[in-house]
Amino acid sequence: MLRGGPGSTAGVKKGPFLPDVAVVGAGPVGLAIAWRCAQRGLRVVVHDAAPGSGASHVAAGMLAPVAEAYFGEHELTGLLVESAARWPGFAAELAAAAGTGIGHRTDGTLVVGLTADDLAEARRLWTYQQGLGLPITPLRPSALRDREPALAPRVRGGAVAPGDHQVDPRRLVTALRAAAERAGVGWRPDAVGDLSEVDARVTVVAAGCGAAALTGLPVRPVKGQLLRLRAPGRGTPGFRHVIRGYADGEPVYLVPRDSGEVVVGATVEERADTEVTAGAMLRLLRAAVDLVPELAEYDLVEASAGLRPGTPDNAPIIGALPGRPGVLAATGHHRHGIVLTPVTADLVAELIVTGEPDPLLAPFTPDRFTGAVRTALASEEETCD
Amino acid sequence: MLRGGPGSTAGVKKGPFLPDVAVVGAGPVGLAIAWRCAQRGLRVVVHDAAPGSGASHVAAGMLAPVAEAYFGEHELTGLLVESAARWPGFAAELAAAAGTGIGHRTDGTLVVGLTADDLAEARRLWTYQQGLGLPITPLRPSALRDREPALAPRVRGGAVAPGDHQVDPRRLVTALRAAAERAGVGWRPDAVGDLSEVDARVTVVAAGCGAAALTGLPVRPVKGQLLRLRAPGRGTPGFRHVIRGYADGEPVYLVPRDSGEVVVGATVEERADTEVTAGAMLRLLRAAVDLVPELAEYDLVEASAGLRPGTPDNAPIIGALPGRPGVLAATGHHRHGIVLTPVTADLVAELIVTGEPDPLLAPFTPDRFTGAVRTALASEEETCD
Repeated sequence: MLRGGPGSTAGVKKGPFLPDVAVVGAGPVGLAIAWRCAQRGLRVVVHDAAPGSGASHVAAGMLAPVAEAYFGEHELTGLLVESAARWPGFAAELAAAAGTGIGHRTDGTLVVGLTADDLAEARRLWTYQQGLGLPITPLRPSALRDREPALAPRVRGGAVAPGDHQVDPRRLVTALRAAAERAGVGWRPDAVGDLSEVDARVTVVAAGCGAAALTGLPVRPVKGQLLRLRAPGRGTPGFRHVIRGYADGEPVYLVPRDSGEVVVGATVEERADTEVTAGAMLRLLRAAVDLVPELAEYDLVEASAGLRPGTPDNAPIIGALPGRPGVLAATGHHRHGIVLTPVTADLVAELIVTGEPDPLLAPFTPDRFTGAVRTALASEEETCD
Repeated sequence: MLRGGPGSTAGVKKGPFLPDVAVVGAGPVGLAIAWRCAQRGLRVVVHDAAPGSGASHVAAGMLAPVAEAYFGEHELTGLLVESAARWPGFAAELAAAAGTGIGHRTDGTLVVGLTADDLAEARRLWTYQQGLGLPITPLRPSALRDREPALAPRVRGGAVAPGDHQVDPRRLVTALRAAAERAGVGWRPDAVGDLSEVDARVTVVAAGCGAAALTGLPVRPVKGQLLRLRAPGRGTPGFRHVIRGYADGEPVYLVPRDSGEVVVGATVEERADTEVTAGAMLRLLRAAVDLVPELAEYDLVEASAGLRPGTPDNAPIIGALPGRPGVLAATGHHRHGIVLTPVTADLVAELIVTGEPDPLLAPFTPDRFTGAVRTALASEEETCD
């Protein structure tokens, strides 16, 4: 088992009643790590004053390795694909372990463009995705409308990514808490302000944006605003695919749930507040109604904002923290926390048990930011002087 | 004092401990009637399970006899003007009696049009209002912008109604409750389902939409949706006038408050639900941001819907109920409940004390709907068979 990294025991805590693993942060990533570790026979505690209250509380839950494959993020795309492949098994195992569903749906995703310009933008991206060998197929307008008659007649065209699915992040957190608890995970309802407060052989920092203050890692908040609609009269939404589109230059996604809910998101803002603004709501509503006109008749039930844990290269930070024996990071998942939950949990649990990082983790280890960590810690020290 | 109408004592209740007046409904109209009656020395009780929870809770509080003077509503306009003239004295007296402000502001109202079509629509109405001798003055675009630089450069033109003011309806309810309580009014926190449950010499039905079930009067719910924004950073809004405009055919009003709040309203829908819909929010936000672009940066703090008590002629119903001795109505104020509060309270208190209706009330008495009342009661009896 990993104890402060290969060849080092400095700083590793010991004691007969010490937990094997303490996870700081009870979002999906932290909870799934705790669950996986407990399944491997480790004694695990999770620290969080408000489980599930971070980015996951507002996340849409798209499992979209294909539609989220952006230019220049080749290694991240590989991890997204790997984690998405683990999702069906993860979802089934979790639902069985927790005794509760998580809204895993496999209807696929449509990528659409409202205007000719929007379609050109969408096509540019899916052509890149096709070039990577990812499963996305352009559709003729008639085929697009056959698949989803709720789309506005104005929509110029699109493509289908049949393997891009969805899950309900709030139900995911509920299920992970139940599964972790059944597996013997303990809870500490406290807000960890410093890692010295945590007693365990290995500490996993899965605190989202909070990881920056705890570790010095370059994780920054990236604000996202979104809203939740509900189909009128307790009905289900009039469309089944996740719809991702561009509407007069505005990117928007629409995620329909069996409950009748439709999540409409999301802004991407370099801000750290969680205010809901009139302008963001206007842009999201306009884009949503332009793509699927029937949404105008839906009830508006929630408007909210959350903070994604962003990193300099948009990829997560997973692995042992340099110079901090016994401390692992699993943070910086940015827009991809839900889809990356299974692979992150699997690989972190494996790393803790074996002490050896899986090769899949190589591009995502904290040491790629070691200079940045030093700088952040140094500037923190300066601030504290 | 009025006891069941001139020449009749049938059905009038008696007893040494009986209140003189029972008011059913603790909205602004009911509370102001109770306050005025208590000031006249009457023993008053108010029945309401949820005071201030009706139309006033979402109302914007515009005191706009001029901008609300519509074609074919000449008599209603007269009452609006009369009540608006009473507002400054009423506001000062109430603030002193309650020891709390009500957000009465006298910055005036701008009526504007975004496009040439919108301006033509606005001009058609203010020309009519000018023809009635009401104080509304067209402004050149430069003069409009001098008065309110926050208006979008696109706004084509407008007019100013300097006497159309505003008050904060939620603070109004709070103040009226305090003033009424200090004047000796008693409270019954019950939902009145039938007037036989009410013991008093005179009963005033000021129950908004609830008056229909209690009296058979033709009062119907007219849904209004609106939203509340807040200037960022605890600032005050960047404009001081109430702004009423048309934006690409969408009528909208913007009411700035000292607290930083801006009320944006409102839809007018023949529906009885209070759901907030995506389409209504989209239309209101678009119109608001088109007229005053800085609103895009404001926080969205509330989206809500309420039910106005509408009547067949859009005018209120104030006076003795035919065939129901000792029962008065003060309901059906539709879009005008706040502005009409002072005159309604004054005239109803006077009617109760003297037994004689003021001539001002002549166009608004319940007997103009006597046929409708009979029909409604008859159909109710049929339903109950």
